[in-house]
Amino acid sequence: MVWPGVLAAYKEYLPVTDKTPLITLNEGNTPLIKSENLSRELGVRIYFKYEGMNPTGSFKDRGMVMAVAKALEEGSRAVMCASTGNTSAAAAAYAARCGLRCSVVIPEGNIALGKLAQALIYGARVIALQGNFDDALKIVRSITEKHPITLVNSINPYRIEGQKTAAFEVCDQLGEAPNYLAIPVGNAGNITAYWKGFKEYHQKGKIASLPRMIGFQAEGAAPIVRGEVVPKPETVATAIRIGNPASWKGAVNAAQESGGFIDCVSDAEILQAQSLLASREGIFAEPASAASLAGVIKYARKGYFKPTDKVVCVLTGHGLKDPDIAIKQITEPVSVPVDEEAVLEIVLG
Amino acid sequence: MVWPGVLAAYKEYLPVTDKTPLITLNEGNTPLIKSENLSRELGVRIYFKYEGMNPTGSFKDRGMVMAVAKALEEGSRAVMCASTGNTSAAAAAYAARCGLRCSVVIPEGNIALGKLAQALIYGARVIALQGNFDDALKIVRSITEKHPITLVNSINPYRIEGQKTAAFEVCDQLGEAPNYLAIPVGNAGNITAYWKGFKEYHQKGKIASLPRMIGFQAEGAAPIVRGEVVPKPETVATAIRIGNPASWKGAVNAAQESGGFIDCVSDAEILQAQSLLASREGIFAEPASAASLAGVIKYARKGYFKPTDKVVCVLTGHGLKDPDIAIKQITEPVSVPVDEEAVLEIVLG
Repeated sequence: MVWPGVLAAYKEYLPVTDKTPLITLNEGNTPLIKSENLSRELGVRIYFKYEGMNPTGSFKDRGMVMAVAKALEEGSRAVMCASTGNTSAAAAAYAARCGLRCSVVIPEGNIALGKLAQALIYGARVIALQGNFDDALKIVRSITEKHPITLVNSINPYRIEGQKTAAFEVCDQLGEAPNYLAIPVGNAGNITAYWKGFKEYHQKGKIASLPRMIGFQAEGAAPIVRGEVVPKPETVATAIRIGNPASWKGAVNAAQESGGFIDCVSDAEILQAQSLLASREGIFAEPASAASLAGVIKYARKGYFKPTDKVVCVLTGHGLKDPDIAIKQITEPVSVPVDEEAVLEIVLG
Repeated sequence: MVWPGVLAAYKEYLPVTDKTPLITLNEGNTPLIKSENLSRELGVRIYFKYEGMNPTGSFKDRGMVMAVAKALEEGSRAVMCASTGNTSAAAAAYAARCGLRCSVVIPEGNIALGKLAQALIYGARVIALQGNFDDALKIVRSITEKHPITLVNSINPYRIEGQKTAAFEVCDQLGEAPNYLAIPVGNAGNITAYWKGFKEYHQKGKIASLPRMIGFQAEGAAPIVRGEVVPKPETVATAIRIGNPASWKGAVNAAQESGGFIDCVSDAEILQAQSLLASREGIFAEPASAASLAGVIKYARKGYFKPTDKVVCVLTGHGLKDPDIAIKQITEPVSVPVDEEAVLEIVLG
């Protein structure tokens, strides 16, 4: 089967009308990879939903294809967003594909190299704001209210509609709903979208049960866990460095309704999970993605799961989005002269 | 349908026995994206086979999954390769997945950041050799001849077997063979593999015709075009910076048998094609990948193609493999203070 993209594949579940163009960059249909080694070690059945395999390297493509399709349907010729990185890459790519002008406002500093490169090469106007994410969002909201430019930040309701297709895929690939859905929580749109997707699939009789939603924030950017806005969020996981999530209520609701929870993990736990994921399973995900596995490791060690439980860890973005972080935490390659014995010593050592 | 990986999907065409473990990281099944904008402008039907959507971000995963599966079947516990980058990432990822030890020898200097990060984080022993690719290959061959370590460089015949599955997919996705298959040529294993794949599918009656194979080297690393080894190959497209291709004969043969050719494109043409691909189609590919599109642009402008011709451009790797190159050729983002008017000026400007 040739995959037609998420709009065509799931149109009966989406706000797709006769006039919505079924644009695609072949987003969605991302692999659900069964864990071989970590499942065995942790005593629970782990699967990875590898959203880094979307065309711009993150789950954001699912929501953006929906938002850009609706912008086109409504006759818009320009889109705009504030972004810490992944959203801007997705917005820029779909805008390029569809001939829309795209402007992205990125808070200056601490932006992953791969993400910045993407927005620029896809041809967006990239504005580095001498402020934080909230400043950027405020300006973008104000400009899009006054001018004929479509706001494609997560406030755009079509984003969550598109993103919920990942929940459909997890169920289609597993043949049922998992027992747990472990997911990184930053702006909290994704946990909200997954829960919406699971509930809709359940209502339509496609799955017999619902998963417990377990969300993980980074310790230094854990407003939902702490119950208050974090004015200066700090974490190596830039994609979830959010102090005041747009979908705060959606996340709390998903956790409560499903009988799950939202907790946090430290940067050290996140980086260790990222490293384990690569070196034990062969999957390279960006630090924020590894928050889901870090959380599962933490709870598995407490004996929280049954051995028969199926736990799906959402890996939100590709590791190549942020190679610097990966390089910082690993040993540099050993430099050797052109000499067989010198090489052999390292190979066998 | 849940994609089972290339070994399971195409096992009747591969050296897969009852004893070959059908390992997978969900490689293959990569999108064939129809060009919207460039097709129209160039007057020919262009499709992009986006191999950057393989799990480690390049086409190398197809051959590596086959090579590592055979290494496991033969009882090997370690693999080794010399690599300019993409091969090492693939080897390290599959070795990690299967619990094999992996050593990679990379020529020091000029290695794309993303690629180096991958080999390291997947847990390979990375050795930076103070020499060139040929020095690295020589040492790796010598060590693997003397020790029980499987060589997974392109000399390993299973690599080409796995890689030919991309040709099968192109035909399955298009419903027929394209008229032309445009492909970057570095070590020349990939053009050899595609041609083998097309011929096998033709023999089995899966396709009625064969494509013409048109291969493109980088001007500063064009040994096949020049008919002689290039001692010091130079190009921004690091993945095809090869002065003495391992599959030289295979490439020449593919071009001759199919009625195609091998030509070269300049670094400027490659970078321009990379930029067009991103800004006009929303696809970010590494520089080497863009050599195929650069070649197609060159020949389309000469009137080489008919308007009804279907041309598939193979995009061998993801742009996130080498973000530095992308950033170097584009304008830096404009830095502005937190001021709506200042932002608006750039958005509307």
